Amino acid sequence: MGIFDFLLGGNKQNHKESHGCASCAAADSCYSAHESVNQLQERMSQLGLPSVFDRYQAQQPQCDFGKKGICCQLCSHGPCRITPKAPYGICGATADTIVARNLARLTVHGVSAYTHHLEELCKTLKATAEGKTPFTIGDPDKLKALAQVLGLDPEQPVNELAKAVADIVLVELRKGADEPLALVKLFAPPTRIQAWEKLGIVPGGPLSEVRDALTKTMSNITSDPVDLLLTTLRLGIAAGYMGLVATITLQDILLGSPKLVKSAADLGILDPDTVNIVAHGHVPLMATAVIEAVNDPELIKLAEAAGAKGIKVYGSMCTGQELMQRNAHNRSGYAGQLGNWITQEFMIATGAVDLVMMDMNCSIPALKYVADRFHTKLISVSHILRMAGVETNIDYKPEKVAEQAREIVKMAIAAYKNRGKDVVIPVNQKPVVAGFGLESIASALGGSLNPLLDAIKSGAIKGVVAVVGCTNNRNGHDSMGIALTKELIKRDILVINSGCMSSATENAGLMDPAAAELAGSGLKAVCQSLGIPPALNFGSCVDIGRIGVVVTELANALGVDPSQLPVAASAPEYLEQKAVADGAFAVAFGLLTHLAPAPPVLGSELVTRILTKDVEDLTGGRFLVELDPVKAADAIEAHILKKRQALGI
Amino acid sequence: MGIFDFLLGGNKQNHKESHGCASCAAADSCYSAHESVNQLQERMSQLGLPSVFDRYQAQQPQCDFGKKGICCQLCSHGPCRITPKAPYGICGATADTIVARNLARLTVHGVSAYTHHLEELCKTLKATAEGKTPFTIGDPDKLKALAQVLGLDPEQPVNELAKAVADIVLVELRKGADEPLALVKLFAPPTRIQAWEKLGIVPGGPLSEVRDALTKTMSNITSDPVDLLLTTLRLGIAAGYMGLVATITLQDILLGSPKLVKSAADLGILDPDTVNIVAHGHVPLMATAVIEAVNDPELIKLAEAAGAKGIKVYGSMCTGQELMQRNAHNRSGYAGQLGNWITQEFMIATGAVDLVMMDMNCSIPALKYVADRFHTKLISVSHILRMAGVETNIDYKPEKVAEQAREIVKMAIAAYKNRGKDVVIPVNQKPVVAGFGLESIASALGGSLNPLLDAIKSGAIKGVVAVVGCTNNRNGHDSMGIALTKELIKRDILVINSGCMSSATENAGLMDPAAAELAGSGLKAVCQSLGIPPALNFGSCVDIGRIGVVVTELANALGVDPSQLPVAASAPEYLEQKAVADGAFAVAFGLLTHLAPAPPVLGSELVTRILTKDVEDLTGGRFLVELDPVKAADAIEAHILKKRQALGI
Repeated sequence: MGIFDFLLGGNKQNHKESHGCASCAAADSCYSAHESVNQLQERMSQLGLPSVFDRYQAQQPQCDFGKKGICCQLCSHGPCRITPKAPYGICGATADTIVARNLARLTVHGVSAYTHHLEELCKTLKATAEGKTPFTIGDPDKLKALAQVLGLDPEQPVNELAKAVADIVLVELRKGADEPLALVKLFAPPTRIQAWEKLGIVPGGPLSEVRDALTKTMSNITSDPVDLLLTTLRLGIAAGYMGLVATITLQDILLGSPKLVKSAADLGILDPDTVNIVAHGHVPLMATAVIEAVNDPELIKLAEAAGAKGIKVYGSMCTGQELMQRNAHNRSGYAGQLGNWITQEFMIATGAVDLVMMDMNCSIPALKYVADRFHTKLISVSHILRMAGVETNIDYKPEKVAEQAREIVKMAIAAYKNRGKDVVIPVNQKPVVAGFGLESIASALGGSLNPLLDAIKSGAIKGVVAVVGCTNNRNGHDSMGIALTKELIKRDILVINSGCMSSATENAGLMDPAAAELAGSGLKAVCQSLGIPPALNFGSCVDIGRIGVVVTELANALGVDPSQLPVAASAPEYLEQKAVADGAFAVAFGLLTHLAPAPPVLGSELVTRILTKDVEDLTGGRFLVELDPVKAADAIEAHILKKRQALGI
Repeated sequence: MGIFDFLLGGNKQNHKESHGCASCAAADSCYSAHESVNQLQERMSQLGLPSVFDRYQAQQPQCDFGKKGICCQLCSHGPCRITPKAPYGICGATADTIVARNLARLTVHGVSAYTHHLEELCKTLKATAEGKTPFTIGDPDKLKALAQVLGLDPEQPVNELAKAVADIVLVELRKGADEPLALVKLFAPPTRIQAWEKLGIVPGGPLSEVRDALTKTMSNITSDPVDLLLTTLRLGIAAGYMGLVATITLQDILLGSPKLVKSAADLGILDPDTVNIVAHGHVPLMATAVIEAVNDPELIKLAEAAGAKGIKVYGSMCTGQELMQRNAHNRSGYAGQLGNWITQEFMIATGAVDLVMMDMNCSIPALKYVADRFHTKLISVSHILRMAGVETNIDYKPEKVAEQAREIVKMAIAAYKNRGKDVVIPVNQKPVVAGFGLESIASALGGSLNPLLDAIKSGAIKGVVAVVGCTNNRNGHDSMGIALTKELIKRDILVINSGCMSSATENAGLMDPAAAELAGSGLKAVCQSLGIPPALNFGSCVDIGRIGVVVTELANALGVDPSQLPVAASAPEYLEQKAVADGAFAVAFGLLTHLAPAPPVLGSELVTRILTKDVEDLTGGRFLVELDPVKAADAIEAHILKKRQALGI
């Protein structure tokens, strides 16, 4: 059966019913809070092209055992499903064991993917230091600062330092689970380390941690749900320092730290007259080289000879956010951010995308089905990514990246020649101010975070919430994230976005300084005085590490533990396994962590209670599952007010 | 709801129907081919204690999506299930992608657990070389031979060599995926390496391989089913050399290589008058120290003071097989092998087991439910194993193992004091000849494998089949394995057993030299002339590596590739994830590999076809799924005859 043969299933009304969210009910169309997506969904329907919304509908009703996490498919006696009449798996495993084990098994994927990114980065940094890549060290000051923390002599030549730092991180990645991570000791607040040591969850080398967690979660090794949940937190800490903090630090060192920049977002930025390349994924290394390549006069000439008015590189998902964050100090060629996970099929359905270069995670198989209907060339730029039907794989190699990037641009030009006339580009575009991070915020504030701290202390800003992570169709694409962000800023709570949530708020105009009008009076005044939006773009999902750095800095400045701060985290449309690892990190880090939809744990009362309640006594953090954005904002605000009260501010 | 409250569900008749196997239909009871198990199932029923058979029944009917591998629970959009009306997951993943991805995700567990065992062994070998453990190097000749292959000077002092070898293997474990494993290069037949290089599946460090495979199998990274299947083969090769071959080699170096020994099996060996300790799991390190400890006069006195006539250590599952293999050169105290995976609850239900020490995999949560009904103390002896309700964890530490072992024996004596009078020990016992392996076979044959080769060439032995791996209730406990072994030996095919299959054939009397009577005339004559049984005990599931070593040796002796030999592998009752990794290794190694029940791949025609057919053109091996033992033997014999014909023998 071909892709076009299956029942499209459902209609808008069905979607509205299945979503059941307030923003869907209010919107003209209930597919998405992103207008361009709704417009192109219409187009795909007309073309008989099923989209994510149609496949979502076709999958209804979904299996409740899986949703609740009480289905085990590990051994050949299974699958086992827990019911009142069969409360034990064939081996005797309870719902508690199965749920906790499945959760840990999801987390290992996230940790793995993060460390893969970091390892690729270390190798690139090392090759760069050896003069083997077209990159140069983008932030030597950050390199020196890191080197000093790592016990190296910062006065060594930059390339020597870069090599030494890369080697240290590679060794950290691969050391034993019984050798505590140096980066945790060096970067985590001391109060956090104490809490983690008490629980025995200070991780060692993440590759060994992943191996140990996989061993534990094999059938019939560890069945204790509490131990499995502690393992998940431990994996989260490994992801936090060896996936998030280390990655953003090395990526800044290599590509430069973010500075405040103006950019643009939404599908309306697509230029109908240029060769259009989309950098799609999470690792911005090849994409950075491609931006360099599109400035090559020879390639521009080639594009012009093909009838185009030039070549442009657009961002999609986290690779795009990374490019946007460093837009200011990159060469021209980068043209803005198209969208997030759910936008990916629709950007191709404009007919104006010539090539999509896919790296790391979140390239859905359905991209190929849409690309096949148009002229779009899909290529993998990472050896880790292989898509059925995609035959061109230009696997990123630091030493060859300049040549590889040129090759990709030539492929895009060739694809452009096949572009049809059926181009439909939505008119929507939004201005964006981006490039936020510890250094750029401090710089905007005159050199330190003190003005921010003062605003928090005075109550002009009640608190800070990181609204991050994926986008999801379960509650209406982007709907929950945008609704929650609006609710929070209205209550004078500053929002930090990263990952797919950055695209959601970009496309909703919340990263435009003009959006200060939507904020409460205190936050509005702060934003207007600084010329910043009430939702700050911190970048990609890896940049959750950047948020961790800022929170650590705030905690240190106030002399308190992160769990005492008037801050919280939210992944209001969480989708995949990196987000599960991020969530585990946030809770281990001591933060109230809002999640929607519910992760697959509700089949175990014990696991649900531990994650949403008991864990607070252990780490200071906990999960909050709430599908209604107003109620979620209520709970988050109450948490922030409680923390303010305890701090006496 | 407590363990006793749930519907026991089903009866023997139901079991008979659900099993549907010939041996069940013929047997008095249809639970198991192991009489002691059937007897104790009766007892557990009378006591109102649900067993694995009852829980199996309560789980019927099982989910067909899971059985076929077409259920994806990776992201929060899911679960997605592939049906004719919904042939795509929400992301667009096909059945092919989902099935291949799930299979790779199972394989990573197996590779992880194997490498954990190997790492623990390396650390023990190193600590032993440093004089920090009670162990001494058990096979210095094997150490020297390995050292030489690894490029070390074999004339160095034994402890220096042991340390150097352990360090080399630790480095191999942790190196990058882009650095091909030295052990593959050194130990695999050159023709195999060529085939694997052509496919790009020579693995690097297994921890990195696991990380990469987990990254690939995250949602929306690699969706190409062919690439995912090649990844599974690559993981299989990593498991083969860095889980199987390396582990048995280092374990022999540390604990001594197997020599032919007489032993005993089945629950009837349980002594009602002694303190009874069961070593249950896969890693024989703590158990070896416990056997040493039960010879301590002070502890024997303590046992006698408690009213016992001594202390005995019994084996269960693979830890037990490891002990049996080295029985001859261990001190007394080891009393034989009780059984395999499905036997575990029933051994406790005798009421005569005082303590079960659990290590690594296959300790089912239900052990606790049975132990709670009796007086049996359960303890974990590995930090990797935590069971709900088990509060005593004596995590194996090489440096402390002597003291830990004494502590365990004391706990067993304390538990013995609580033993009730309700002891029911089946009368069944079987004599066993064990201790087979390359060296012991060669030694029995007068110094070389030539007599075996001659018997194969002459046709007295048509071929050799490794019937290995788990036991499973799906086709009747032990039924399929025993039936297949009997069919093969009847056809003059020599059978090698390891893992839970060794217990199956031990308890069926097939490892008694008298069983030669059941063999065809050619094999019978060979067995009788050598005084060996027609089913050779190679030990635990890790000892599949030992089988690989013998097959490599046979191939080298004949100057052919393993895929050309008249040999095959079978896991006729495969259960868990190490077995999946073993299967991937066997197929990569070039062997016809029989499997029952069907692994969760039947939901993809493409994956099923590749694994059972197309892969033969790539590696020379393939999977054969056949639930009927006679038909399986037919197909295996046909394969062997084809290979004989091609070799002109």
